[in-house]
Amino acid sequence: MGKAMANRPQENPTMLCDFYELTMGNGYYRNGFYKRNVYFDVFFRNVPDGGGFAIAAGLEQIVEYIQQLHFSDDDIAYLRGKGIFDEGFLTYLKNFKFHGDIYAVPEGTPVFPGEPLLTVRAPAIEAQLIETYLLLEINHQSLIATKANRIVRAAQGRAVLEFGSRRAQGADGAVIGARAAYIGGVAGTACTLTDVLYGVPAGGTMAHSWVQMFPTEYDAFKTYCELYPDNATLLVDTYNTLKSGVPNAIRAFKEILLPRGITNFAIRLDSGDISYLSKKARKMLDEAGLPNCKITASNSLDEYLIRDLMMQGAQVDTFGVGERLITSKSNPVFGGVYKLVAVKRPDGSYQPKMKCSDSASKAIIPGKKMPWRLYDENGQAQCDLIAMDGEEIEAGKPVTMVNLDSDAIERTVTITPTKVKKLLVPHILNGELAIELPSIAEKKAYIAKQLTDETWESELRLECPHKHYVNMTPAVAECRSRMYADLHGGKV
Amino acid sequence: MGKAMANRPQENPTMLCDFYELTMGNGYYRNGFYKRNVYFDVFFRNVPDGGGFAIAAGLEQIVEYIQQLHFSDDDIAYLRGKGIFDEGFLTYLKNFKFHGDIYAVPEGTPVFPGEPLLTVRAPAIEAQLIETYLLLEINHQSLIATKANRIVRAAQGRAVLEFGSRRAQGADGAVIGARAAYIGGVAGTACTLTDVLYGVPAGGTMAHSWVQMFPTEYDAFKTYCELYPDNATLLVDTYNTLKSGVPNAIRAFKEILLPRGITNFAIRLDSGDISYLSKKARKMLDEAGLPNCKITASNSLDEYLIRDLMMQGAQVDTFGVGERLITSKSNPVFGGVYKLVAVKRPDGSYQPKMKCSDSASKAIIPGKKMPWRLYDENGQAQCDLIAMDGEEIEAGKPVTMVNLDSDAIERTVTITPTKVKKLLVPHILNGELAIELPSIAEKKAYIAKQLTDETWESELRLECPHKHYVNMTPAVAECRSRMYADLHGGKV
Repeated sequence: MGKAMANRPQENPTMLCDFYELTMGNGYYRNGFYKRNVYFDVFFRNVPDGGGFAIAAGLEQIVEYIQQLHFSDDDIAYLRGKGIFDEGFLTYLKNFKFHGDIYAVPEGTPVFPGEPLLTVRAPAIEAQLIETYLLLEINHQSLIATKANRIVRAAQGRAVLEFGSRRAQGADGAVIGARAAYIGGVAGTACTLTDVLYGVPAGGTMAHSWVQMFPTEYDAFKTYCELYPDNATLLVDTYNTLKSGVPNAIRAFKEILLPRGITNFAIRLDSGDISYLSKKARKMLDEAGLPNCKITASNSLDEYLIRDLMMQGAQVDTFGVGERLITSKSNPVFGGVYKLVAVKRPDGSYQPKMKCSDSASKAIIPGKKMPWRLYDENGQAQCDLIAMDGEEIEAGKPVTMVNLDSDAIERTVTITPTKVKKLLVPHILNGELAIELPSIAEKKAYIAKQLTDETWESELRLECPHKHYVNMTPAVAECRSRMYADLHGGKV
Repeated sequence: MGKAMANRPQENPTMLCDFYELTMGNGYYRNGFYKRNVYFDVFFRNVPDGGGFAIAAGLEQIVEYIQQLHFSDDDIAYLRGKGIFDEGFLTYLKNFKFHGDIYAVPEGTPVFPGEPLLTVRAPAIEAQLIETYLLLEINHQSLIATKANRIVRAAQGRAVLEFGSRRAQGADGAVIGARAAYIGGVAGTACTLTDVLYGVPAGGTMAHSWVQMFPTEYDAFKTYCELYPDNATLLVDTYNTLKSGVPNAIRAFKEILLPRGITNFAIRLDSGDISYLSKKARKMLDEAGLPNCKITASNSLDEYLIRDLMMQGAQVDTFGVGERLITSKSNPVFGGVYKLVAVKRPDGSYQPKMKCSDSASKAIIPGKKMPWRLYDENGQAQCDLIAMDGEEIEAGKPVTMVNLDSDAIERTVTITPTKVKKLLVPHILNGELAIELPSIAEKKAYIAKQLTDETWESELRLECPHKHYVNMTPAVAECRSRMYADLHGGKV
């Protein structure tokens, strides 16, 4: 982690908070609430692009953030200059440290609307202050990991590379976005810094400018093959893909690489009709005796276009995906929220809290909770179950559940899971790291295994997937209904 | 700048480059091209959301980046580990510094498709290496500044605040995005760090959690008014907006603030039907004798919804805009590109270069150029004109132009501008800062003045605006056509 810390965006992101976290913090300080322990949940309401699941990501950056939280003298001076903060509060901030707990689903876990992805237990000011940064990392990285996985599924085993840095929404959007895309399933990135910081393999060969720099396209290709005989992917669309690009590439491969016994070269298509051009190029390459030459395609790709290209039999071995992945263009917001769910009473017990606004379906699930995953007889995740903290769910025993979706035909069901798993794992306890975080390769393998072995095929569809059951225990459902009725006079 | 530098994302973003910039750089080093001066242009092809213009932004971060470009020993070791880079190239990188020139339109200038926003003159490796970062900053910040301006125009004089950090695509997306939104026209942000780093006024009052922390909603409001009598905006939708939120706010204002002679308070609506609720709330506030109480609204707003709310007479004084601004949700990509346009010949002259791919309309405009803005008799910008570098355009003299849009009815026109202005201004010369950058307040004033005094009203429409004329001088048009015919056998 040391190496990553040195170069990471936002050396000290403590001040990357919404200003209201400071005005509220000052208020909690003034009225003594600041020592009061509270619980906040992070959850989301909709899977982007109408998908069957999201992939939780961003946790490693949150853990780093928590460990380096502090206010500098400059930060304190800035706040004092606002003229609204109590000097006692500013002294408190000067000595600020996070003392709470963070429970979270491990990075790379498929997650579903309504269930807590992360729960914070901390004194009120501390829990409030981290709201923006926690949401920002989870929302950004879960968005990109989820989108990347959709694109990888559409490519049906062909490699997908992340090419989007130049169109990302800021430096973190590029660098950390490529990290999230890798967790989500892409094979590598064009972003060098993501390789340096996170070990995501970076690669790249040439831009159109390389080709333009030389007197002829053939000169450009020949020079490249001589320089990088083991890594020659030639960009063939600078002038005219089929009339000059592909023929010049074939000539360079045959003259420079084949005589050296090298056959693992490729061409890249970056404009025009990828289906048409890739088939024509494939034919030309095959007829030239270069059946091993691979074809890479890029240019405004996403899961929808890749799916169509695959259906048309496009001859593409590797997809380079840029702006539509790195911004999740078709759905660029992951709507995670951070809601107060319980406050400690003087007697040490916790009082559940609810915000219900003006719609029952948006009423949050109050209380200190634990989401579980329940598996069917094939070892696949059958449903998730939100239980009160302390409720035990056991494999092999019938469990009765209330569906979170009030539209469900059967609101109450009973099943006997073959296996159960708590989804939230302690990551920070009393302000200290409580877990050895897996490597990025382990995270990548973890998500791949879950999607291959533990997810219903019907949830993997890109369009209209099966909606994963997210249920509540009767205790959770009863608490929620009772509180909603008390606050709002209705039922939920 | 010193203060900003200490905390900025990406302490050293040199390695935030596409890997191909390094493989090409190594190639240029090996074949001697690296000392050869080249020109690259940044331009874009479409205004996001079908708008009439974009607002150029991101330049200040580019200037900082250029001045701190360097490779650390760790960077060099990383590259050496790849096993493909020449030791001479690695030594060259160790001593790397940018020696070129950067000409750019000042931040806050309205810009149009096809014209250069920024031109780089530098030795080949240097010019190539900065591609990704330059595009990233221009694409991200121009996107957000442009979106913010659309939203501000829709609000017709009501204040707009930026509230999106938690849904931004990474830390820079939040912090620098809020900076760009301020240049584009919003009045302030919720992001504290953007205030610290860039002087964009940050503000904020309370979240739902504040209300939930107290035994009753009224207690929460009363406590807040006592703490912040001069800055009380009460969030009224935690439980039930009209039945409890607004009545409790009215009671707190009357009991705590009116007796102190304070009347500049507000309520905030964050859910439900903003038009309906704001009118009802307005009526309740007026009837309670609080006509000065302002109403702020937030919750998934953008220019389309704000325009509709305004049309329906919603009683909103301030709009807080989150995810749909900070990600430019309806169009989250600004497609700026970076293209080689000229290479220095041994005789010191420049050879124009063109990439044309497989479509004439996408053929770039070759050569070393200068875009001009030409003004009509009202002092408003009538058209832009891309000239060869060195061509002089004079006010009061007829100028003949060729429209860049090959669909234009009159492909060639002659006008007599009353005033002309070169759009590209030197920012970096021979690697050194060549300009005193305006303050962010000056940038904000600059764009506001241009849009008020110098832009045709027909280009300010949100839907189907007038398409600004971007023309070429006959010399530019002829060079482009000739090169396209040479390369592609067709006309452009």
